[in-house]
Amino acid sequence: MPQLRQNIATKEWVIIATERARRPEDFTKKEKSQKEPTPEYSPNCPFCPGNEHLAPVETFSIRKNNEWQVRVIPNKFPALVPEGSSEFYHRGIIRYMNGVGIHEVIIETPKHNLIIPQMSYEQVINIIQTYKNRYLSAISDERIELVTLFKNHGESAGTSLEHPHSQIIASPVVPQHIRNRIEEAMRYYDDNRECVFCRMVREEISQGERIIIETKNFVGFIPYAASSPFHTWILPKRHIPSFPMITEEEIVEFAQILRDILLKIYKGLDNPDFNYVIRSLPGKCRENDFFHWYLSIIPRVTKTAGFELGSGMFINIALPEESAKFLREVSIK
Amino acid sequence: MPQLRQNIATKEWVIIATERARRPEDFTKKEKSQKEPTPEYSPNCPFCPGNEHLAPVETFSIRKNNEWQVRVIPNKFPALVPEGSSEFYHRGIIRYMNGVGIHEVIIETPKHNLIIPQMSYEQVINIIQTYKNRYLSAISDERIELVTLFKNHGESAGTSLEHPHSQIIASPVVPQHIRNRIEEAMRYYDDNRECVFCRMVREEISQGERIIIETKNFVGFIPYAASSPFHTWILPKRHIPSFPMITEEEIVEFAQILRDILLKIYKGLDNPDFNYVIRSLPGKCRENDFFHWYLSIIPRVTKTAGFELGSGMFINIALPEESAKFLREVSIK
Repeated sequence: MPQLRQNIATKEWVIIATERARRPEDFTKKEKSQKEPTPEYSPNCPFCPGNEHLAPVETFSIRKNNEWQVRVIPNKFPALVPEGSSEFYHRGIIRYMNGVGIHEVIIETPKHNLIIPQMSYEQVINIIQTYKNRYLSAISDERIELVTLFKNHGESAGTSLEHPHSQIIASPVVPQHIRNRIEEAMRYYDDNRECVFCRMVREEISQGERIIIETKNFVGFIPYAASSPFHTWILPKRHIPSFPMITEEEIVEFAQILRDILLKIYKGLDNPDFNYVIRSLPGKCRENDFFHWYLSIIPRVTKTAGFELGSGMFINIALPEESAKFLREVSIK
Repeated sequence: MPQLRQNIATKEWVIIATERARRPEDFTKKEKSQKEPTPEYSPNCPFCPGNEHLAPVETFSIRKNNEWQVRVIPNKFPALVPEGSSEFYHRGIIRYMNGVGIHEVIIETPKHNLIIPQMSYEQVINIIQTYKNRYLSAISDERIELVTLFKNHGESAGTSLEHPHSQIIASPVVPQHIRNRIEEAMRYYDDNRECVFCRMVREEISQGERIIIETKNFVGFIPYAASSPFHTWILPKRHIPSFPMITEEEIVEFAQILRDILLKIYKGLDNPDFNYVIRSLPGKCRENDFFHWYLSIIPRVTKTAGFELGSGMFINIALPEESAKFLREVSIK
């Protein structure tokens, strides 16, 4: 019998469609890629070393022996631009604001073919440190309300350039989707005097069956009401509202669990396309009792169709407990 | 300069990314399909006449000269099933309901290759009459809260069977996404004593530049804050909260405008994959002042990526005014 499950934090419902269910191994890529192996350097890639002049001027970098390890540049085709005021104009159905904001590209490595699952921990630490730096830089702009850090890996996940990179978009508005999640978290706190994410972490660890990896300060699991197959959350166990409130010590551990979970997905599902995104409290970094940042990984192993677009409710054809067991057992030694 | 636009009804923000903007004609399919033309009859298709025994038992049909024109069957791999109670169980992070509901397939034509843009008006009227019948049948079940009628056309829109069909999923829960839209519509009514959709219809018609087709009782346009290229809404001008409150006379006109707009999309964009969905007030059909049903068409000409998944905010790389002008000018004579 199919199940309807509700995520206690987001209050989103998902249909776990057991009639359509597939085994975890059914999600590995059917058709092996016919492509040539990707080279370590690509002469026309604007993100490769030596081609820095093809890209806009760098806003940040981490260097070692005078060579950049991670490099940040403004997006050449920005969704939002830094110049202009964020005044809101509205008259009838016309509700408008200049498209002001920040849109940067985080080049994760000088190597054209080095994806996170194959990186050293040290390199992933560089990336996370860069995320923190760019988040803090963006949110210091008075016009910015929301910072979204995300990564698109693979064509069906929306990548246009192959060289490994993440993006940051900082916007002067908070979309309904985010606002609703904040409101749900506040409501839960009002009713329970506990952060709903802290509760999830506690119960997921105690139930154990959806855990992929648990470390001293972090836990990665497939939520009870995961909206798609292998949809994974990584949370700090400590209550941290905003991502940049992460400590240097926590960055090291977070980079390790992120690398390891992406490696399990890479090996277990044969390098699927995926997105990940960091969800963090909008606005300035500040203490609060109700919201808790996390990273969400969405492997693109199924397609969304009219039902999802129309209802906002997802159909997940994989049982979270089975998917988690599968990833838990993928060896990454 | 990019623009931030907000939909007055849904309150969703969209980024109109003019830096990335493409002309309407850039969205037509680049690679022509290499496939053989689809035959009118496919021997192994469970939806083709003569193969009725391959499919579950019919729940409804429209017949002419004893041959079915439109036929409805339960989905063979249902997301939700009719048997069982909709009792809600919750303890901690476990929030659960049996996956009860209705999931039917509406076979739109006996012909394996006859898609809506190429149908006669008469056949599309049969389909809309069937939609109304199945909606009313589903909502008469005491457990049902939400009825979603939708169509997936093409592989990237999530179709698995080629024979033209739509689907109906009736669920015992109302997802957050829908509830938020209802709340926004109520709030607008409270503030203005007018239905926000009626206002949109009025202003879109008076501004004119985003209209695709206007008929006596319906209007089809690309909303001011359309979330993706060629995203189109068709609304009745009369205030009708629930879809099945449509009259027989209105069905005729609605079928015509739907067919014509899909034909313009088919010709103008070279048969793109698309979804459409009917958005209607949850619960029993009843009069109210604030909600207004509509049909939303989403051509799948771009991909959603990590930013959209993370923020719930969309980036539209086409200017709604240009897209509407383009479709308005596609000749369908």
